[in-house]
Parts: sequence; C-alpha cells; structure tokens
Amino acid sequence: MIIDEHTMQQPDQPPPIFFVSDGTGITAETLGSSLLTQFDEGHFAESTLPFINTAAKAREALATVEAAGRESGTRPIVFSTTVNDDARTVLREGNVLFLDLFDAFLGQLETALSKPSSHRVGRAHGIADADAYQSRIEAMNYALAHDDGLATRGYEQAQVIVVAPSRCGKTPVSIYMAMQFGVFAANYPLTDDDETDTRGLPQALEPYRDKLYGLWVEPHQLRVIRDSRRRGSRYASIDQVSAELGAAQRLYNRFSVPWADSTHKSIEELATLIMQQKNLRHAIF
Amino acid sequence: MIIDEHTMQQPDQPPPIFFVSDGTGITAETLGSSLLTQFDEGHFAESTLPFINTAAKAREALATVEAAGRESGTRPIVFSTTVNDDARTVLREGNVLFLDLFDAFLGQLETALSKPSSHRVGRAHGIADADAYQSRIEAMNYALAHDDGLATRGYEQAQVIVVAPSRCGKTPVSIYMAMQFGVFAANYPLTDDDETDTRGLPQALEPYRDKLYGLWVEPHQLRVIRDSRRRGSRYASIDQVSAELGAAQRLYNRFSVPWADSTHKSIEELATLIMQQKNLRHAIF
Repeated sequence: MIIDEHTMQQPDQPPPIFFVSDGTGITAETLGSSLLTQFDEGHFAESTLPFINTAAKAREALATVEAAGRESGTRPIVFSTTVNDDARTVLREGNVLFLDLFDAFLGQLETALSKPSSHRVGRAHGIADADAYQSRIEAMNYALAHDDGLATRGYEQAQVIVVAPSRCGKTPVSIYMAMQFGVFAANYPLTDDDETDTRGLPQALEPYRDKLYGLWVEPHQLRVIRDSRRRGSRYASIDQVSAELGAAQRLYNRFSVPWADSTHKSIEELATLIMQQKNLRHAIF
Repeated sequence: MIIDEHTMQQPDQPPPIFFVSDGTGITAETLGSSLLTQFDEGHFAESTLPFINTAAKAREALATVEAAGRESGTRPIVFSTTVNDDARTVLREGNVLFLDLFDAFLGQLETALSKPSSHRVGRAHGIADADAYQSRIEAMNYALAHDDGLATRGYEQAQVIVVAPSRCGKTPVSIYMAMQFGVFAANYPLTDDDETDTRGLPQALEPYRDKLYGLWVEPHQLRVIRDSRRRGSRYASIDQVSAELGAAQRLYNRFSVPWADSTHKSIEELATLIMQQKNLRHAIF
C-alpha cells in the first residue's frame, strides 16, 4: 500500500463522521447515528458542528472536516441537515461524502404537498411552535414534580402513572415521555406495604386505575442495580427483590394493570410501548 | 371538482403523515418532523406506528395508512426507518409516498465503508451499546440528584454546572443534556444572598469555576414565568426579577462565567450551545 507523505494512510480506520447543521445538529445526529448502527464498525469518530448558518462558517467547518479526512487518510462522511442555501453550497463542494437530508427528501415533499419549502433555519429544534414547546416544558415540570410519588395531588392531570418497585426504571421513562412527547407522566413507587396481597391498590392510585402502567425487571438484574447503590443491604438482597417483584406482578394481574418487562429494553423502547399501549400517541384521526 | 363516492375529497387538507418503523419510530419522527417544519401547513395529522417488524404487521399498518388516505382523499406520506426487509417490501408497495431513510442513504454508506449493512432491527434506540446506554442512565440519575443545588457533593464528577436565578431554565436543560448526550450536568440556583456584589461565588461553586455556565432571560419573560407559579408574589415582581438578573449578570462577568440568553431559545438550542462552548461534544480527535 502506497503511503502518501501528506496522508498517514491507515487502511482499517473508518472515515471520520461529521454531523453538520445550521440548527442544533440533533436531527443530523439522530439520522446519522441510526444509519451507522447498521455497520458493526465499533466506534466511529463522530463530531457535531452546529449553527453553521453562513457561507463563512461553512468554509470553516469544511476546513475542519477536510483536515480530519487528510489526517485519517479517508474521505469524511458528512450528515447534513443544513437548510441555509449558502452554507449548503459550500459544504456540498468539499472532498467528503455529503449525505443531505434535505436534498434527499425535500423535492419529493414539495411535489406531494404542492408547495415550495420555506428554507427557514432552525425550525426542527427551535421554538417553531410556541404552544407545543410550552406544553413540553409544562410536561417536564409535571414529571419532575410527580416523580417517585413526591406529589400525589394533581394525578387528575396525569396521562399515565408509571408504577413499579424501586429501581425498575420509572423515573427515566417518565421524564423521557415528558421531554420527547410532552406527555404528563407521573410515577409512584410500589413498596412492600402497598402490595401485601390482602390490600388493594395504594390509596393515592385507587381513583386513577385506568392511568396505571407497571414496570417489572428480572430479579437478578434488579438485585445488581440495587446492590450498586446500597451494597450488601437488605434492600438489595435477592429475597427482598424477589418478594417486591412478585407482589408487583400480582398487583398488576389483580387490577389489570398493563405492564412491561424492562430488563432488556431501553428507555426509548419502554416509552414507545407505554405510549402505544396507553394510546398516548397522536390519535389516528 | 369531481367528488368520488369513496373519497371525501377535501382539496385543502394536507395528506396524513405516518412514521413507521420496526423499532421505536423515534428516528422516523425526528427525520419527518424536521422536514415538515419546512412547510407552513399548520398542523399535519401525524401518527406513529412502531414495532412493525414482520410482513403481517406491515400489511396491518399499511391498511391503516391507506384507510387514512381514502378518508382524507389524499395520498398519505410515510416516513420509514424500517430495516426489516419483509416489512419494507410490503410497505413500499402501498398507495403512499414512501420516504425511506435506509433506501436513501444505506447504499452510499455501504460503498463508502466498503461493507454491507447488518439490516438488524431496533439498534438506533435500543440497547445496542450497553456501556453507552448505562452511562446515559447514570448521567440522568446524576442530573436528577444534583438538580437545583440539591446535592453539592459530587460536583467533582460534574462536566458542567448550570447556574442561574430561579426559573431561567436550568433544570430542563441539565436533564436534556444528560438524557440526550450522557453529560453529567448539575445545576445550582443563584439567590439574592449569593450574588451580593461584595461576596464571591457561592462556596459550593468556588472550587469548580471552570465548570460553570450561566443562564439569563429577559426580565419581563422571567416575571411572567414566575407570576404563573406564584401570582402577585414578591418573587414574581419586576423589581425582584430585575435585581436577581442584574446580580447574576455581574457575577457572570466578574468570574468570567460563559452564559447564554435563554429568552428565545429552546432547550435543545441551549443544550447545544452549552455543549459547544464547554467543549462537551465528541472531541475532534
């Protein structure tokens, strides 16, 4: 293999990846990361260059990208969601594989919707729709205020109340639903007391049965999670964990609470499941 | 205009939008929503159909999509991130505008990376990389435990400590950075006391000057936000708000704390700015 004096050619190195946008770059990252999960390269060297909204900034960004290409002896891959035409024109001419979300789809959408696109920058993750944005913030405040049974008043506002024993993933999934989807999600911990088989639902939950969604996790995994928090405690013992999980499962069954096993699921997968099973997605009109 | 008896043609109605995926559909939603912000249609009727990972489920999904098309008298638009070939084959044959992320880009990526893609489902928002996933969860636990000055121990682990007067947006931006980027983000409220011009930084922050990032918001907006929480209170008065914001700004200047005006910025834009200015993005190797 010939090694050029200017390029330290390393044949096994994958090309550097850049996410470039005139906005936050979050769409470009999401798009690009999704595609890259389809290649088992291990880890790509990824960088995000946000707010590239002028030709001058685009030239600067391109210099960075091309330098990384020379350094690695590969042709960099650029995932772009740049709307600004001046910036796009510059970026497109670089010595890179330029994968542009707008080039790929905007033409077809313009035809389908019979109108030109606005080419306005920063609408995807900006405050394009002030009402929708405000309600997401309110959902997030709600989720934080109603985390882990903190405030049980205000459950009439909840769209879903996630229930589970401690450390099954209630908090992250509730906050994710609030932040990503603007859902008013409360969560409430199931303790030993609440779940004795002779008693009913915890009193705070009783009026809101229809809003409940349960989580469960394999005892061994819950034991490990709890042990990393309070090593060697009764709380983390397999006996305690199994008892709580068994009681939770009986409670779900007795009160027909839909539930999911979170052992092998990500926050996003759990949130999606809950949204689907509780009909919290945009209704099909 | 001829109205077919089977299609209630409503010429001004935009086509229904569907996000279809064999995973969570979050990438398809992000991609599609970004593109749709380029059209000032007002509100599209949007639905997400996740976990479409077999030909049978795809046929069911397609029936739903095509029914919505007939109902509206338009051709539905489907944003797809379906990797499963069986499902994709079915979906592609529907009477829809089929915009497929993988069709558009995967071929070019396979060429650039000189290898075939794995066509494995659910890797984008599943637990594809267990270590990366675990560190995101830890970041989120950290952000929640270190919200609003709750725990000031453990600041040595923080990658950034967001400071601002109450209700300037510290909490959502910290949690967003943790969830989206796996950043260890604490936040600490600036109160009147801390910020008197004769005193230094709050004691808890003093050792961590380099980690601070300030937020600021226009006094009028902060007044409105606070008033909606505690109507007519001194806390929400323009005098109090202006005094706190003035003191915060002096503190930022005196201690060279980088800061952003969050008045017209979304959580995502603020998070991106902070990541950029504090060098928390993936380093450019």
